[in-house]
Amino acid sequence: MKDEIRLNAFAMNTVGHQSPGLWRHPRDRSADYRHLAHWLDLARTLERGRFDGIFFADVLGVYDVYGGTPDAALRAAIQVPANDPLLLVPAMAAVTEHLGFGVTATLTYEPPFPFARRMSTLDHLTGGRVGWNVVTGYLDSAARAAGRPRQVAHDARYDLAEEYMEVVYRLWEESWDDDAVLRDRASGVFTDPAKVRRIRHDGTHFQLDALHLSEPSPQRTPVLYQAGSSSRGRAFAGRHAECVFVSGPSAAVVAPRVRAIRQAAAEAGRDPDDILVFAMMTVILGETEAAAHARHEDYLAYADPVGALALMSGWTGVDFSRLRLDEEVRHVENDAGRTAMDNITRADPDRVWTVRQVAEHVGIGGIGPVMVGDPGQVADRLEAFAQATDVDGFNLCYAVLPESFEDIADLLVPELTRRGRYKRSYGSGTLREKLFGRARLDCSHPAGRLRCASGTQAPRRP
Amino acid sequence: MKDEIRLNAFAMNTVGHQSPGLWRHPRDRSADYRHLAHWLDLARTLERGRFDGIFFADVLGVYDVYGGTPDAALRAAIQVPANDPLLLVPAMAAVTEHLGFGVTATLTYEPPFPFARRMSTLDHLTGGRVGWNVVTGYLDSAARAAGRPRQVAHDARYDLAEEYMEVVYRLWEESWDDDAVLRDRASGVFTDPAKVRRIRHDGTHFQLDALHLSEPSPQRTPVLYQAGSSSRGRAFAGRHAECVFVSGPSAAVVAPRVRAIRQAAAEAGRDPDDILVFAMMTVILGETEAAAHARHEDYLAYADPVGALALMSGWTGVDFSRLRLDEEVRHVENDAGRTAMDNITRADPDRVWTVRQVAEHVGIGGIGPVMVGDPGQVADRLEAFAQATDVDGFNLCYAVLPESFEDIADLLVPELTRRGRYKRSYGSGTLREKLFGRARLDCSHPAGRLRCASGTQAPRRP
Repeated sequence: MKDEIRLNAFAMNTVGHQSPGLWRHPRDRSADYRHLAHWLDLARTLERGRFDGIFFADVLGVYDVYGGTPDAALRAAIQVPANDPLLLVPAMAAVTEHLGFGVTATLTYEPPFPFARRMSTLDHLTGGRVGWNVVTGYLDSAARAAGRPRQVAHDARYDLAEEYMEVVYRLWEESWDDDAVLRDRASGVFTDPAKVRRIRHDGTHFQLDALHLSEPSPQRTPVLYQAGSSSRGRAFAGRHAECVFVSGPSAAVVAPRVRAIRQAAAEAGRDPDDILVFAMMTVILGETEAAAHARHEDYLAYADPVGALALMSGWTGVDFSRLRLDEEVRHVENDAGRTAMDNITRADPDRVWTVRQVAEHVGIGGIGPVMVGDPGQVADRLEAFAQATDVDGFNLCYAVLPESFEDIADLLVPELTRRGRYKRSYGSGTLREKLFGRARLDCSHPAGRLRCASGTQAPRRP
Repeated sequence: MKDEIRLNAFAMNTVGHQSPGLWRHPRDRSADYRHLAHWLDLARTLERGRFDGIFFADVLGVYDVYGGTPDAALRAAIQVPANDPLLLVPAMAAVTEHLGFGVTATLTYEPPFPFARRMSTLDHLTGGRVGWNVVTGYLDSAARAAGRPRQVAHDARYDLAEEYMEVVYRLWEESWDDDAVLRDRASGVFTDPAKVRRIRHDGTHFQLDALHLSEPSPQRTPVLYQAGSSSRGRAFAGRHAECVFVSGPSAAVVAPRVRAIRQAAAEAGRDPDDILVFAMMTVILGETEAAAHARHEDYLAYADPVGALALMSGWTGVDFSRLRLDEEVRHVENDAGRTAMDNITRADPDRVWTVRQVAEHVGIGGIGPVMVGDPGQVADRLEAFAQATDVDGFNLCYAVLPESFEDIADLLVPELTRRGRYKRSYGSGTLREKLFGRARLDCSHPAGRLRCASGTQAPRRP
C-alpha cells in the first residue's frame, strides 16, 4: 500500500558517516563504532521505532581526492577508519526480531564464491532478514588496495557486475533444491545428493565449478538494494534491484529520478511498483518548532566544512581544495560523470553558491534535504515529499548518533502512525515478505527466473 | 605455567563436524547450526566451563574424493553444508566476556586487504578476543570454486602464504601508529595523518598501495593459530604460529610432533615455549566409569562408517570407496603427502586394520584419541598425555553437541580445577594477554618485528 511510509536508518561502521564534524558533538556516540554495545543499543532503538531496516554504507578505500591525500579525511574522520559492516549484523540480529539489515558490499574486489556463502550465512543467522546493497565502488584508492592502478572504467564495472550477479544468483537459487535437505535421522540422509547440483560458470571475469556450500537460506537471494544514478546504473537497478536509494536536494530533483528507475524496471520486463524507492533524508526534530531549530543550530556549530569538502571530493572525483572557500561555483566537471555538484545546484538553479555554502549544505546529512521542525511539521513535509516524488519511504541519515534515531522513534513515528501512514506493528516473515509480501523473487527478476526455469524439475547434477 | 591444562572447544559452522553420523543422535543439536540461539547457548556453556576459546574449522569446498563425487558427503552431512564461521563471532562475543574465538580462514582464495579489515573489525568488536587459524586449503574442490583446475601445489601454497602474511602483518602493525587516533573533540582532529602510513607492497602474488581501513584494534594482529603437519607447514608454524594444533592417535605419536614444532620455533629464532600446543582429543564422560562407557556405546550406535570414509578420503586425497570394508589396510599412498592413514596405523604399528575398523576409529572425534571414563579417570589420562607429549592443552571435539561440552564444563573442569590444573577464573585482557601475558607479539616474531622496526619513530608516509 502506498499509504505506508517506510523508514530505513542509514549508517556505516565508521565515525560520523554523512555529517562531517558532528562526531565532536557532546552527545554524539558514533566514535563508539568499535564497540558491540553501541550497535546493540542502536538495533534496539530502531526496532522500537519499527524501522524496516538499517542500511549500512561501506567503502573499501579512503577519500583522498581532496588535496590529493587522505589527510583531510583522516583528520576529520570522513568515513575513515571504516570497519566491515557485515560483522555487525549477527550481533544486532541477536537482540532484535524484525529489523532488516541492508549491507553494502563492493563486488569488484572480492571473489563471488566465498561472498555468496557469507550472505547465505547471514540470511540463515538472521532468519531471512538480510539485504545486499550491490556496489561497484567509486574510489581509485579502493582499486589500489586491490593492487590495481585505478578503478575499472565505469561501464566495464557494470559488465563485471552483471556477470557477478549471474554467478551469485546461480549459487543462491540453482545449486540446492528446496527439498534437498531432509535432516532425516531415521534414514541417516541429511541431504539428498540428487537435489544438489554443481554450478559451472566459465565467463569473462569469473570461472567456477562448485556446489554452493550453504543449504537454502530463508530468502536464498538476499533482498537486493541499489543506488546507481548513472544511466547504466539505472538500467542495472531496473533489472536487479528490489529497493533503490535515491538522493537529491529536493522533491523536484528526486521525482524524475524515481520515474526513470520505475521506467528502467518496466523496460527490464518488471512491474515498476516491484521496486521500493527510498529517498535520502535528514530530519531534525523537537517537541516544538523552536526546539527543533535550536537543536539544528546547535548541530551546525559542530559541522566541519573542510571535512564536508573532503567527502564531496571523494564522491565527485573533483579536488575542492583547489577552490577558495569564498569562490562561486555553478557546475564542477568530474571525470567519472557523477553529479554530486548538480545535486546541490539543481535544488535552486538560480542561486549562486560559494564553496563554503556547498560545504555547509553537505555538512549535515550529505547531499540529501534536511527537514527541521516539530513532529507534525516534519510528517507534513515527508508526506508531501513522498506524494510529489512517488518514493515509498526514506533512508534517514543521522546528524548525531543515536540521538537522531531516538528522536525519530519517539517523536516522528508516533505522529506518522497516528496519521495512518506508518505500520502499527511489524509484518511477519522474512525481510522480503515484510517489504513485498512474497518469499521469493518472481519470474520477472533474473534471480527469480533461474528458479522458475530450474524449479524442482530441473536436470540433476550429472 | 605448565601446570595449567588449557581447553579449546573444536567446532565448525556445519552439522556434526568430526563425528560422522552423530547428528542423528536424539540429543545432538548440531543440525541447528543455522540458528543464532544455538551458538549463543554454546558460547555461554563454554564460558561457564572457562574454555580459553572456541576454535572454528572451515573448508571452502566439499569432500568429493570418496567415489569421485560429493554424494557420500552430502548424504552423511560430512562438513557440508558449511556456513561461514567468521559471522558467528560477533553474536557469540555479545553474550560472553572472556571466551576467545579462533577462526579458520583459508588465505588462498580471498584477497588480503578486505580480509585484514574483517579480522580487525572482529578484534574491535570482541575487545581483542579473536584468533586466526591460518590455512592454505587442502581440497581441490575449493580451488575449482575459485576458478582454478586444481590446488596450487603444496609448497607453492606456503610461498603464497608467506607473502600473504607479510601483507596482512604490515596492514595490521605498520599502517597506524598506536597514538594515531586522537578522538579530540576540542581540536576536531580524529586521526593525526602524520601517524598513518600507506602500505606499499609489490610482490609475486599480491600488489597493494593502501592505508589499512581500521584503526589499531586491541591485539592488532589476531592470535595466530596453525595446524600444518608437513615439514613446510611445521617451518611455517615455527615462524608464525602462537598456538598450534596437533592431532595423532596416541601420546607416543604426538610427542615427537610437539618436539618438532618447538624445534621449528627455535630455528626461527623464537622461544620454543612461546608456542602453545593443543592436541586434538575427544572425551566421553559419565558420573561413573560405567555411565561413561554406556554413553560411548550409545554414541557408537549412531556413527556412520561411510561418512567417516568420505571424511578420510577428503583429508588424504585417497578414494576409500575403492576398498572393500573388510579389506586390510596398512599404509595408503596419497598424492599430497599427507599422513592421515599413518595417524591411525602409528598408534599400534603391529595391528592390522580393516577399512571398517578405520571407519570406526574415525567415527567419533576424527583421528584424535577418544578417552572414556569418569572425571577422575579422564583427568588422569589428560594429565598423563600432557606430561608425555609436552602439549599445553587440548582441542576438544564433540561427539554430541552441546552435550559433550556441557559434560566437560560440568564434570571434567571441576575435577581439573580441584587438582590445581585448571584456572579458577579467566585472566584479564585480550586473548593474547590471557594466553601469553603480553599484549603484542614480540620482536622475535615476524609481525612483532615490524612493530619493533617501525615503532613510533618510523619514517612517516611521504
